Amino acid sequence: MNVDSELFGCFAFHAGLMTIKTLAMAGWTVRWRMKKRNPISREDAALRKADKIGNNQDEDVERIRRAHQNDIENIFPFLSLGLLYLFTNPALGTAKMLFRIFSAARIVHTLAYVNEVPQPTRGLAFFAGMGVNMYLGYSIISHFAASW
Amino acid sequence: MNVDSELFGCFAFHAGLMTIKTLAMAGWTVRWRMKKRNPISREDAALRKADKIGNNQDEDVERIRRAHQNDIENIFPFLSLGLLYLFTNPALGTAKMLFRIFSAARIVHTLAYVNEVPQPTRGLAFFAGMGVNMYLGYSIISHFAASW
Amino acid sequence: MNVDSELFGCFAFHAGLMTIKTLAMAGWTVRWRMKKRNPISREDAALRKADKIGNNQDEDVERIRRAHQNDIENIFPFLSLGLLYLFTNPALGTAKMLFRIFSAARIVHTLAYVNEVPQPTRGLAFFAGMGVNMYLGYSIISHFAASW
Repeated sequence: MNVDSELFGCFAFHAGLMTIKTLAMAGWTVRWRMKKRNPISREDAALRKADKIGNNQDEDVERIRRAHQNDIENIFPFLSLGLLYLFTNPALGTAKMLFRIFSAARIVHTLAYVNEVPQPTRGLAFFAGMGVNMYLGYSIISHFAASW
Repeated sequence: MNVDSELFGCFAFHAGLMTIKTLAMAGWTVRWRMKKRNPISREDAALRKADKIGNNQDEDVERIRRAHQNDIENIFPFLSLGLLYLFTNPALGTAKMLFRIFSAARIVHTLAYVNEVPQPTRGLAFFAGMGVNMYLGYSIISHFAASW
Repeated sequence: MNVDSELFGCFAFHAGLMTIKTLAMAGWTVRWRMKKRNPISREDAALRKADKIGNNQDEDVERIRRAHQNDIENIFPFLSLGLLYLFTNPALGTAKMLFRIFSAARIVHTLAYVNEVPQPTRGLAFFAGMGVNMYLGYSIISHFAASW
């Protein structure tokens, strides 16, 4: 049950990067809620004269929220799958390639979403990230199946 | 701080299975959004003539989304709690039983949700998974309380 | 790649506490859905005569759901960042302080949210937790940058 330190470091780097990227979406939402005067709760309204309160009110705010939610649905699974994958004795080059593809795909996904890039850019980025996650999960399940 | 490899393997198997199960909900949502012509964003609409755009528009799509959200709220905590629980010196048999109950409960939860099985099936599955999570969390907090 | 057991124990304690705190929001939502007769799905309604069904119907239920969602967006990232941070050779005192600030900030955040405490209480608690997460993430990315 030992993990190569270069392998661990590569995962830690991409896990840290992707988590910060997801957290940044929350800050971005706050900024647009202020810009579009769309606070999430009525006690926030006093901070700035509000036009509308709550979710599902402003397409620009909602677009960032959807990109954020998609990160939650895809990046959080990666944080666990990537860590457990380290214990399946993967080749260093394969693991690095998978982690880099995942990070690149999720950054493209967000840029395509918030800039409303025509499909299939966002769809392809989504499926690239999903493909990496599914491969990691398959590797873990098959490697540890005997211990179920 | 050593973890038995059979214990780790059992957790890794169930963590991988539950994560893939959660990720599959996203693919399922995409499929139903296409079937029901209910894309999430306006730039998606061109891919297929859309009847309605966005969330909260179609009960079948929303039902899968609610099951997905419930996985996020319950399975993601399990991924951390289960890993930390391995370091509390649990009995192998107890740990395996808890992980298997959790996986079974969450699969029943989703099947009950998407097939609209009458209550209390979904409620019982929810509380079974929640009970496992709460037990894992209690074990961790009490085991490591001195290091707070 | 060794982690001090006191350092690990401190992280495990706060990770367990924050995860249980997040899970408790789900139980809290269930309780208020019953009290306000606002079940989430139509098959739940038979359990209790319902006034309204689904999300975005009752401000008290929605307020707890928003606090829960904010935990998902901030506490789940902490569970990964805190674990990886342990491998960056942090000083024990610094790490303990960061974990304690995070736990305290997130508890204040929830109390401020559900009790509708006037701003900036909730905002400050949010940014304190976000600040800890960002620092953990920065430490991880810079420590492991060479292994990208």
